[in-house]
Amino acid sequence: MAGILSEAERAHLAEVAQALAEAARRETLAAFRPEGGIAAQNKLAGGFDPVTAADRAAEAAMREILARERPEDGIYGEEYGVKSGSSGLTWVLDPIDGTRGYMSGTPTWGVLIALSEELEDGPGRPLMGLIDQPYIGERFFGGFGAAWSRGPLGERRLRTRAARPLAEAVLYSTFPEVGTPEEGAAFARLSRAARLTRYGTDCYAYALIAAGQIDLVVEAGLQPYDVGGPIAVIEAAGGIVTDWAGGPAWRGGRVLAAANAETHAAAMAILAG
Amino acid sequence: MAGILSEAERAHLAEVAQALAEAARRETLAAFRPEGGIAAQNKLAGGFDPVTAADRAAEAAMREILARERPEDGIYGEEYGVKSGSSGLTWVLDPIDGTRGYMSGTPTWGVLIALSEELEDGPGRPLMGLIDQPYIGERFFGGFGAAWSRGPLGERRLRTRAARPLAEAVLYSTFPEVGTPEEGAAFARLSRAARLTRYGTDCYAYALIAAGQIDLVVEAGLQPYDVGGPIAVIEAAGGIVTDWAGGPAWRGGRVLAAANAETHAAAMAILAG
Repeated sequence: MAGILSEAERAHLAEVAQALAEAARRETLAAFRPEGGIAAQNKLAGGFDPVTAADRAAEAAMREILARERPEDGIYGEEYGVKSGSSGLTWVLDPIDGTRGYMSGTPTWGVLIALSEELEDGPGRPLMGLIDQPYIGERFFGGFGAAWSRGPLGERRLRTRAARPLAEAVLYSTFPEVGTPEEGAAFARLSRAARLTRYGTDCYAYALIAAGQIDLVVEAGLQPYDVGGPIAVIEAAGGIVTDWAGGPAWRGGRVLAAANAETHAAAMAILAG
Repeated sequence: MAGILSEAERAHLAEVAQALAEAARRETLAAFRPEGGIAAQNKLAGGFDPVTAADRAAEAAMREILARERPEDGIYGEEYGVKSGSSGLTWVLDPIDGTRGYMSGTPTWGVLIALSEELEDGPGRPLMGLIDQPYIGERFFGGFGAAWSRGPLGERRLRTRAARPLAEAVLYSTFPEVGTPEEGAAFARLSRAARLTRYGTDCYAYALIAAGQIDLVVEAGLQPYDVGGPIAVIEAAGGIVTDWAGGPAWRGGRVLAAANAETHAAAMAILAG
């Protein structure tokens, strides 16, 4: 567990997060949208889990910065695994969240970065984090009392939307087939209760909650690096992210992200059946 | 039917198309991502068919340019209907394709513009057109011998990808529930044959075919203005767009867009059952 961070330490940590995002932006953009598409490797034999060289290069570039700037912090990365630290803090990194989207040229994949408490068995509560979309040139940051986005329309304060009935809520998920059959049935109940369900935006949907544009994101089967950055950004913007039972979502699994507590409670009741 | 267009006429028409896109970009961006989301009107009582003031303002701005620059051409627009012309040419306009995406802040809606032959009963073959994504600042143009995109990575020539087996193809559609139950079953067959199916990108998926990033887009229940611009762009980039039976798709309905003739034929066979 980290001690209390000074103002100066927080400012430095936020700067390091921006530097990580800049490095990952360079590496991921360098291989984005080649002519004829990306020839990706398959990570799992027989399965379709594309990992590009850019994914690895981006995480390596971020680890290089951390080795120089934050050698005592831990790292929990998608591509190169876990490095224990001694500071009580760990960086949770997903260099390309949404590799299928990245491979097919969409602008909704992203770089996810969180600074979390380091617990004995893995990352704990995210303290600060970001979602970066390199192609659009857009970043969503949250933590240490700040919540902002920078992109095509300039800099804005992030603020989630107010509560509204579920029948007027907009729900996002990556795939219509959410998790196991049981999880899929729970998701279908929620989808029927919502006004509109949309798919396929990868981590960008979390950014849309933080920006006050949508109400809910529901996913299953996530990893800690899929959700650390989004939790930090959404919570800083006024939203709430838990697992489907209301417990911490830091470790991934079933994730329910909502614009506000009322929408969160209403969705959780329906997911519980 | 229009006569043969001179080089100068073509250049002027292409310039007018850019001017239309610029005007629509201004109007649509002005209302994109307000804090707290968009309060849209419902076009159909009881249904969810959001139309924003921006949608109408964008088409009005385009019609104003056409009234000045191309008074003898027809117009076939989503919001303000049909205006007959005398030149044998008609402009097919969708100021915001993907209003649901627009309302929820995604960057995959777009402005669709086509210049088509004007037939007695509506728009005919698109001669030139574009897909514009105002938030990203990205445009995909095709027709009169040109096929290019301009955006965050600069200007590029558009070229669809080469044929590959369906089992390696990437398929996009807006919703998992494609059209009628019968159409949905045909789509499901194709989805099972493809390597990856993704949803929710609105007209942006057509741009991804033109840019060589994906192989197939399949939709049903479309209007002429949903498909005129995409047909022009994809055909200029080397792809092929027809209805599910191989006939013209200018009037919308069931649309099959493919990166090349081989992929098109393979997909059409599976859709036919």
